[in-house]
Amino acid sequence: MFTNYKLVKNAAGRMVPDNINGQAAVPYMGVDKYKAEGRKYAPKISRIADYPNGYKVVESLKDALIKAGIKDGMTISTHHHFRDGDLLANMIFDIAHELGIKDLRWFPSASFPCHSHLLQYLEDGTISHIEGSMNGPLGKYCSLGKMSKMAVLRSHGGRYQAVQDGEVKIDIAVIGAGSADTFGNANGVEGQSASGLLGFALADSQYADKVIVVTDNLKPFPCIPWQIQGNYVDFVVKIEKVGIPEKIVSGTTNITKSPDKLLLAEMTAKFCDITGIIHEGFSFQAGAGGTALSVGEYFAEIMRKKGIKASFARGGSNKYLVKMLNEGLVGYILDGQTFDLDGVTSMRDNPRHVMTSPFTSYNYHGKGNFAQLVDVAILGATEVDVNYNANVVTHSDGYLLHGIGGWQNCLYSKTVILPLPLFRDRIPVIIDEVTTLCGPGELIDVIVTERGIAINPLRTDLLELVKGSDLPIKTIQELKEEAEAICGKPEKPKLGEEVVAVIKWVDGTVIDSVRRVIE
Amino acid sequence: MFTNYKLVKNAAGRMVPDNINGQAAVPYMGVDKYKAEGRKYAPKISRIADYPNGYKVVESLKDALIKAGIKDGMTISTHHHFRDGDLLANMIFDIAHELGIKDLRWFPSASFPCHSHLLQYLEDGTISHIEGSMNGPLGKYCSLGKMSKMAVLRSHGGRYQAVQDGEVKIDIAVIGAGSADTFGNANGVEGQSASGLLGFALADSQYADKVIVVTDNLKPFPCIPWQIQGNYVDFVVKIEKVGIPEKIVSGTTNITKSPDKLLLAEMTAKFCDITGIIHEGFSFQAGAGGTALSVGEYFAEIMRKKGIKASFARGGSNKYLVKMLNEGLVGYILDGQTFDLDGVTSMRDNPRHVMTSPFTSYNYHGKGNFAQLVDVAILGATEVDVNYNANVVTHSDGYLLHGIGGWQNCLYSKTVILPLPLFRDRIPVIIDEVTTLCGPGELIDVIVTERGIAINPLRTDLLELVKGSDLPIKTIQELKEEAEAICGKPEKPKLGEEVVAVIKWVDGTVIDSVRRVIE
Repeated sequence: MFTNYKLVKNAAGRMVPDNINGQAAVPYMGVDKYKAEGRKYAPKISRIADYPNGYKVVESLKDALIKAGIKDGMTISTHHHFRDGDLLANMIFDIAHELGIKDLRWFPSASFPCHSHLLQYLEDGTISHIEGSMNGPLGKYCSLGKMSKMAVLRSHGGRYQAVQDGEVKIDIAVIGAGSADTFGNANGVEGQSASGLLGFALADSQYADKVIVVTDNLKPFPCIPWQIQGNYVDFVVKIEKVGIPEKIVSGTTNITKSPDKLLLAEMTAKFCDITGIIHEGFSFQAGAGGTALSVGEYFAEIMRKKGIKASFARGGSNKYLVKMLNEGLVGYILDGQTFDLDGVTSMRDNPRHVMTSPFTSYNYHGKGNFAQLVDVAILGATEVDVNYNANVVTHSDGYLLHGIGGWQNCLYSKTVILPLPLFRDRIPVIIDEVTTLCGPGELIDVIVTERGIAINPLRTDLLELVKGSDLPIKTIQELKEEAEAICGKPEKPKLGEEVVAVIKWVDGTVIDSVRRVIE
Repeated sequence: MFTNYKLVKNAAGRMVPDNINGQAAVPYMGVDKYKAEGRKYAPKISRIADYPNGYKVVESLKDALIKAGIKDGMTISTHHHFRDGDLLANMIFDIAHELGIKDLRWFPSASFPCHSHLLQYLEDGTISHIEGSMNGPLGKYCSLGKMSKMAVLRSHGGRYQAVQDGEVKIDIAVIGAGSADTFGNANGVEGQSASGLLGFALADSQYADKVIVVTDNLKPFPCIPWQIQGNYVDFVVKIEKVGIPEKIVSGTTNITKSPDKLLLAEMTAKFCDITGIIHEGFSFQAGAGGTALSVGEYFAEIMRKKGIKASFARGGSNKYLVKMLNEGLVGYILDGQTFDLDGVTSMRDNPRHVMTSPFTSYNYHGKGNFAQLVDVAILGATEVDVNYNANVVTHSDGYLLHGIGGWQNCLYSKTVILPLPLFRDRIPVIIDEVTTLCGPGELIDVIVTERGIAINPLRTDLLELVKGSDLPIKTIQELKEEAEAICGKPEKPKLGEEVVAVIKWVDGTVIDSVRRVIE
């Protein structure tokens, strides 16, 4: 564990380390309060003379890593376009281990249970630590204080920001692609391992020192469309199989059949209808969870009934959203991540199914982003507190088991709604203070539960709009008390003092610390 | 005139200034000899909080320029997507003049006769000088030593390189677009002023301090496709008319009807056939000139006859190339600049008509570029010398009347052929030494004239391949002598000592100087 820090109180009242693994950290200052000075990261100048004939194919991934100069202490990035079907990260660190390389910083856009294989390399020092979302076992490992350095969790936009601004300097980016050509142009919409778009690797391609594209479908130039531009790529490798696209569809990307969750989805849609959020030309983003997906279905019903069309839908695509696009209910899908194979096919074939990236959609350090333009975002959370602050990374027992995804970035949408069960496994979801602060309450507008809807008092406009409706409007305190009346006051998680991970806000400041869990 | 420089001899034996308007300059060192150290230019970090709701529309171009902080000595960039139909540059400097701004550096991707309007602002000091191609009157003005600073000419790739590397820092980029949305996403494929793609403005959007998008077709978000990404844009302005797309088709972009030029085109195609350059899956790029366009027609004939298909064609698109794409003779058009409205329509509707940019195609300071991948490039020149060095910017009288375009960048293709008349207006085209060196002879492989074909002795492979053919192979000296026998030895232009402009090589070094013309 990294312990060489002092804790300072940030603007949210959270104690956060003054440095992360020796690199100075800026404590969170409040929404839109931190103004980063300075300039973006400036990558080294290359020249085409060092890429003769533009032919970049090398023999193997090992060969590419060696040519890219892999050595102790480097930062290696990978991407989660295959989600739990990723094969590449494990290969990379097997090679690093074989080469005797130590102390690597792994900088994935997200990690999944399929990466449990890498626990051995965290143990033996091949990998020093992970900066990136840790879904499942790796998060648990981190929670127990077993990682030798502090983990850093960022949103998708925050990851782009950190790379763009040079906060994280990537030595070697390895990008798995469904298709690529010998020049390094690559996409994820074609080939046996088509996974959709490759947007999570965009920053890496632009700013990493060396970029390796790995594919199982090597094509002659030009690979069209080029989601990754070969002009950023150093080496191209062909391997047997780059990922398992079927595993992109995980538990979180199927529509719910639970009657409770369907009720939440229906109430959310009704709320949006009554408040006029659903109007001609509106826009929405629904997360990947089952409830959020179901909201889309209810939206579609209302839109059909009223003859309303959405101008665009943002966010992860799936068969439900694709259906709405094909039906003409939404003008465009502005896609950040395909969540099923229907999404992949639609993106390949339909010009109205548009590829986006964390740069266009989520980067806080840009001249605007798409999240700002979305009328309503329907998101999830593990916990919400009475000040509307929300947590998406730790459970009530304190274990760090989820990534942030685009969640923080979506809070910049015009209205943010969290449809949540009042309790899970008899543990209330609305509590006095969230275990880990991921999103400040002032950006979260509405909590929809099966027993009532709470509207953030800051949103006087919404409170006005629901007057006289039959929506079960309550205060968030009332909802909390109802849950506690049923389940009792929830126990606090047993946490040590040590900070095992930090949560970055979208602007690169530290919004909260994740403490070690005492088993 | 800027005169505060010393002349130094570069690796091509040309005398070039040691600085350009006070900024140190690196003399040309030879092909692939200069290795730039250092890093790309790092733009300032922005944040979305300064772009509330992502809505960037301001009242007028004047308003936008003022909000962008226009002031004395700034660098303002514009683009030539409308070629001689551009309306925007004149508007900008009218406003600057009205505001009393002085000493602006104009950094267009190219200027045309329509910009003669700006001569008054060069006279009165509103504009200090031009860095960019000057086609026609502005070039003549420069040639006469009337510009108060030294002009700089770059290739399309060199312009990208200069901006990327921070050699030219753009204060305000103004991008005219056929369509744009309120966020600043923009394209040139839709609207009354559709001009094709907006690739020449890519570097400007990425690296300029302030970016203004001007359109006459303002759409609600999202403007799809976004050739310019709104995430780089500060202000959006709607005006009456942004450009005259009909004027994109200028004299240089129509197929030739001249029997002499058709003969050159036919001989060029025959040469490519006999040498096996035309083979299954080959690639080609033909410039915008009438002869080059006609070469494509002859290529098509050979390909049809032999049942051969090209994998891709690079370069400016036009109705002839579009026809080949639709016929299936070429797999893809990788387009850098649409030269007529058929090109615009095809780019909009055909996914195999792909938008490229100077970054993908031409930037020497990248990890490879597309020009390297082209089998044969058919280009023009004003003069060639006996060492195969070529000139594309000045006439034999010394006047600077043309831009470099992508010409220098295309020299990196595998084979470069210049089909040229042996003389123009009774002035020989092949001479002892070019007036202005734009391309080093070692990169120029074949000169095709109506009286014979000269192959660069460096290309022993081509010399071998034509053996036994009925092609009229001669030495370049023989061709020169034939021309001189008819026209006499050409007179040297009357030039002063003063350097009025420099020609940059693709790597940012100075390959030659343009001298003042004595009237």
